Amino acid sequence: MASVCHHIPLSLFSGHIAGLESSRFTYPNPTAPIVLRTPFYPTGAPFCRRGTARYHRKSLKVCAAAVVNRVAHGGAAEPVMKTVILGTVDESENLTLDKIRDNLIRQEDTIIFSLIERAQFRQNSAAYDAKSNSVPGFDGSLLDYLLKETEHLHAKVRRYTSPVEHPFFPDDLPEPVLPPLAYPQVLAPAAKDININPRIRAMYFEDLLPKIASAGDDGNYGSTACSDVLCLQALSARIHYGKFVAEAKFRQQPDLYIPLIEAQDKQGLVDLLTFPAQEQKVLDRVELKAATYGQDVTQAAPLEHRTYKIEPKEIARLYGEWIIPLNKDVQIQYLLRRLDER
Amino acid sequence: MASVCHHIPLSLFSGHIAGLESSRFTYPNPTAPIVLRTPFYPTGAPFCRRGTARYHRKSLKVCAAAVVNRVAHGGAAEPVMKTVILGTVDESENLTLDKIRDNLIRQEDTIIFSLIERAQFRQNSAAYDAKSNSVPGFDGSLLDYLLKETEHLHAKVRRYTSPVEHPFFPDDLPEPVLPPLAYPQVLAPAAKDININPRIRAMYFEDLLPKIASAGDDGNYGSTACSDVLCLQALSARIHYGKFVAEAKFRQQPDLYIPLIEAQDKQGLVDLLTFPAQEQKVLDRVELKAATYGQDVTQAAPLEHRTYKIEPKEIARLYGEWIIPLNKDVQIQYLLRRLDER
Repeated sequence: MASVCHHIPLSLFSGHIAGLESSRFTYPNPTAPIVLRTPFYPTGAPFCRRGTARYHRKSLKVCAAAVVNRVAHGGAAEPVMKTVILGTVDESENLTLDKIRDNLIRQEDTIIFSLIERAQFRQNSAAYDAKSNSVPGFDGSLLDYLLKETEHLHAKVRRYTSPVEHPFFPDDLPEPVLPPLAYPQVLAPAAKDININPRIRAMYFEDLLPKIASAGDDGNYGSTACSDVLCLQALSARIHYGKFVAEAKFRQQPDLYIPLIEAQDKQGLVDLLTFPAQEQKVLDRVELKAATYGQDVTQAAPLEHRTYKIEPKEIARLYGEWIIPLNKDVQIQYLLRRLDER
Repeated sequence: MASVCHHIPLSLFSGHIAGLESSRFTYPNPTAPIVLRTPFYPTGAPFCRRGTARYHRKSLKVCAAAVVNRVAHGGAAEPVMKTVILGTVDESENLTLDKIRDNLIRQEDTIIFSLIERAQFRQNSAAYDAKSNSVPGFDGSLLDYLLKETEHLHAKVRRYTSPVEHPFFPDDLPEPVLPPLAYPQVLAPAAKDININPRIRAMYFEDLLPKIASAGDDGNYGSTACSDVLCLQALSARIHYGKFVAEAKFRQQPDLYIPLIEAQDKQGLVDLLTFPAQEQKVLDRVELKAATYGQDVTQAAPLEHRTYKIEPKEIARLYGEWIIPLNKDVQIQYLLRRLDER
């Protein structure tokens, strides 16, 4: 992740870091002469030694000040600039390895909620047809327009600086207007290059949506596209979370994974990380959730005659047929590059 | 709703309408010389007689052509312009009176889903503090920024042409880039002037949010604000749906409502439209939904020891204390003006 530092060569950071105790900078109005466009990592970052960060317990803000020396450039150790790295830390603990299982289970809820919301509308295929789009100057469907513009807006509030978020239109995203958020550094550097959103998008429109939404057209293209954006974002987050899953598996059994990675043995990796009993457990849970969240809670009918907003068995099938395999593909892509740049 | 026609005085439409059969215009590229910036109403609109609309069954698009005469201006009956009114029709049937109850119940799900999603994050008050906002050139909090920009984008896909949608930043919204959608004409003209979003916003941040989200700050201001936007939109839609509720009640008992409206007897109207038993039913259902949707479905604990993502009794209490009264206030405001412009 060190490569997200765009403005100052990393080598500058190899000098010693000092001066914290005497510095008092508070978010959001730093008086710093330079604010780096990079997250500040309390631990593990190549440019920040332990002990240079202080947490304001009350506000959970992080302030750090560093005097960076020119030693990396072979010069004398005089300070050349005072650098203040400011940011907030993701304290939600969602991205630590021991929270992965909880996070995956929680994301199922988001996916099922968003699919239930989408199922209010018909398929409305005109929203996906570039020829039906009447947005002046935009070449693409209404959904393309809304998705791209939403990502543009969310990029400004730093959505895509999070390692769990992946844009569908990664080109030309604006820089965040918020100061950077420091995430726990969990993933290997190659993680940031893996984005399978084109396949997620194809799966959603070709395989998922026709099973979720009734055929036909109710004219609500705008609402439909807003709802699709939420579904796509939820699916993308869940599927790309495979990076964290793979990292956790790798750390549990590095001795088994490293030889397979070094041999670039894709099938060997698939076999090693696949647990059919665990996958069945996910499918059962997803079906139960779809039945629970999609039911009419006031319906007095016996279980076998109940109607659901979306068909639970179908959701479980789609999960097993599409979402889990795409997630597994992310895991494999990540593991094959897990040892890069070490 | 006829007053949403901004560009051409209504009186122009009182002439006769003809010429449909010979006209073939297709969405989305009308070859029409004039496209009115108003929804096209297949029935009931002052300017469109029955039989002048044709549905393309296949696509549910509506095309209509009308030659409007100058008769309303006292002139001869020669045609002064050929007007083509194009649009799609909301076929979801959500806005017809007999669907109101279903729609209200359905909207509870959307609200509870969105509150559950919001509860993933802490209160994160910095997202609501204009002083903490670092968006260059924007005077307001991060939430203000995201809400305003989201509304700006959604306005383009005609969100706020729907009678159930009300912007929080109604000024300077852009015109829709989609052709107008024709909604069933259910409400009285005054409906469009009623927007209590400032109060909904205050209620959400002062009363609801502190009970939903844990105290403190996890740094995820962007995700928090995205989630708030969905909550606010869901709450606003549900509360302003009071217009449809009031219209339905009015139509059931016009003889009781009309004298109270003519006397502008607010308390009389409150008494007439309040059904405590019905309200209790809503609260019970909301509590059951919050418990159902917010549960850990895999939890084996007995009911009394279960933990929920949001506290069901608290959600029911907030619903009873804030959402129902605000909805009722919309009903009253609407009814007091129900007979205007008749």
